[in-house]
Amino acid sequence: MSINRPTLSNAVRKLTHDVEVMDERGRVSIVAIPAEQPLTIYLDKRELVTLMTLGGAPEALTLGYLRNQRFVRNIEDILSVQVDWDVDAAVVVTRNGVDNIDERTTKRTVTTGSGEGTVFGGLMDEVDSITLSPDARLRQSTLYKVIETVRTHRSVYKQAGSVHGCALFSADGELIHFAEDVGRHNAVDAIAGKMWFDDTRGDDKIFYTTGRLTSEMVMKGAQMGIPFLLSRSGATQMGHMMAERLKMSLIARCSGRHFLLLSGADRVVFDDASPTEETLST
Amino acid sequence: MSINRPTLSNAVRKLTHDVEVMDERGRVSIVAIPAEQPLTIYLDKRELVTLMTLGGAPEALTLGYLRNQRFVRNIEDILSVQVDWDVDAAVVVTRNGVDNIDERTTKRTVTTGSGEGTVFGGLMDEVDSITLSPDARLRQSTLYKVIETVRTHRSVYKQAGSVHGCALFSADGELIHFAEDVGRHNAVDAIAGKMWFDDTRGDDKIFYTTGRLTSEMVMKGAQMGIPFLLSRSGATQMGHMMAERLKMSLIARCSGRHFLLLSGADRVVFDDASPTEETLST
Repeated sequence: MSINRPTLSNAVRKLTHDVEVMDERGRVSIVAIPAEQPLTIYLDKRELVTLMTLGGAPEALTLGYLRNQRFVRNIEDILSVQVDWDVDAAVVVTRNGVDNIDERTTKRTVTTGSGEGTVFGGLMDEVDSITLSPDARLRQSTLYKVIETVRTHRSVYKQAGSVHGCALFSADGELIHFAEDVGRHNAVDAIAGKMWFDDTRGDDKIFYTTGRLTSEMVMKGAQMGIPFLLSRSGATQMGHMMAERLKMSLIARCSGRHFLLLSGADRVVFDDASPTEETLST
Repeated sequence: MSINRPTLSNAVRKLTHDVEVMDERGRVSIVAIPAEQPLTIYLDKRELVTLMTLGGAPEALTLGYLRNQRFVRNIEDILSVQVDWDVDAAVVVTRNGVDNIDERTTKRTVTTGSGEGTVFGGLMDEVDSITLSPDARLRQSTLYKVIETVRTHRSVYKQAGSVHGCALFSADGELIHFAEDVGRHNAVDAIAGKMWFDDTRGDDKIFYTTGRLTSEMVMKGAQMGIPFLLSRSGATQMGHMMAERLKMSLIARCSGRHFLLLSGADRVVFDDASPTEETLST
């Protein structure tokens, strides 16, 4: 790569745990449930935050968190991210330190399902400051390819359920990145971290999430510059409103060959007239 | 009631919004999506936090947030909670002020799906400090009654989807409180607020959530003193671990007459031997 990239550890860990359960008939069996582990990020030796995470991509999650929370502007400023599960820590070293790090590193925990939101007012200002690529288009046939790819992708969700998944696809529907976590915001942050590391631009990309299309999900997609946001779930009023302001294509209820386009219809090309099947996804 | 209760507004608002959508065949229709509105809590004239909420029970959400975030110890200390949707504000006035309010009121936003977690270390200490009523028992027949009540309860979810629901039930399966919100933590906080206001103890109660049984969900249930946590969804490793430490009955995948008991089996009485039907819930 042309620019410097941080050194990353590759701290793999078990993503599921077997537990004994009893069903309604009193029958005992073993089922797998997702791991959920605290990961404390230390930025230049200062404790920044503790995230509750599945642990599938801790380095990418750490990078994405630093990016989305605006702690570090450029990836070149990060020398290394070293994750050590023995102490549940991600140690980040920057090249030149972080401005006003003291006032920004008050100890707190972001628990499962959480995302530290930016201040709401500033969030709406930011919406208006973002311009998504006006030329990006999504073909219906590509959308179906994305849905089918997600459906058949090997995942912790299939094995243990109870996790959220996100995926980044190219304009022609090729899978680029996939991430799962106990919290949907962590999963998005992990994708953002991978994109940051790869220097991948959102311009013409397609983002899929199993989570709902809420204000924060739309905001994070926009921050990555992605014009297409897909979900098997639905959308909320604020997510819908933001997507319209961003001219982003918000596509909910993606399942099998079904979907509901909530905004940005002019970006979508209906090139598949084949009969609608019943949904295949679960 | 024997003790003083705050004066509450009853700021009702529209919980769903109709939006125009286009399906896979290019057919245009109108669907309802849940409202999502910022609500800024002002505690004794200080801006505390902005929650993104459905807006179904803003006063209860505000009370629950103040309680669960430990801003106010006793409900008697709160004189009033006045919500005004024209300015998206919840104005809280306390009797004697709040200790070190200045250092605790740094502006931040908790966005949809989020919950401001307590520091993880402190959270585990708290788990060990909580003792749930050892005598509380849940009959299988009561469990089925709870599942069926939730299934048939009128809800925003049925109308628009994309919200999380929570419900509190008595030991014999009577519905006491029901709350929905765009974020599952807001829904739990709203129930906590209602319980706080009613002076309802968790002792022998049953708590149902549509959300996953994660560490924070188990922690919030424990803070309310509730020994039975039910979900139509699954559990995570940390949620399971905490529930075992708390001797809490964690019951996942509740649907129709099916369930998976993950912990606290000794609290559950199997009194229903009727044949298992296929799941009725969606």
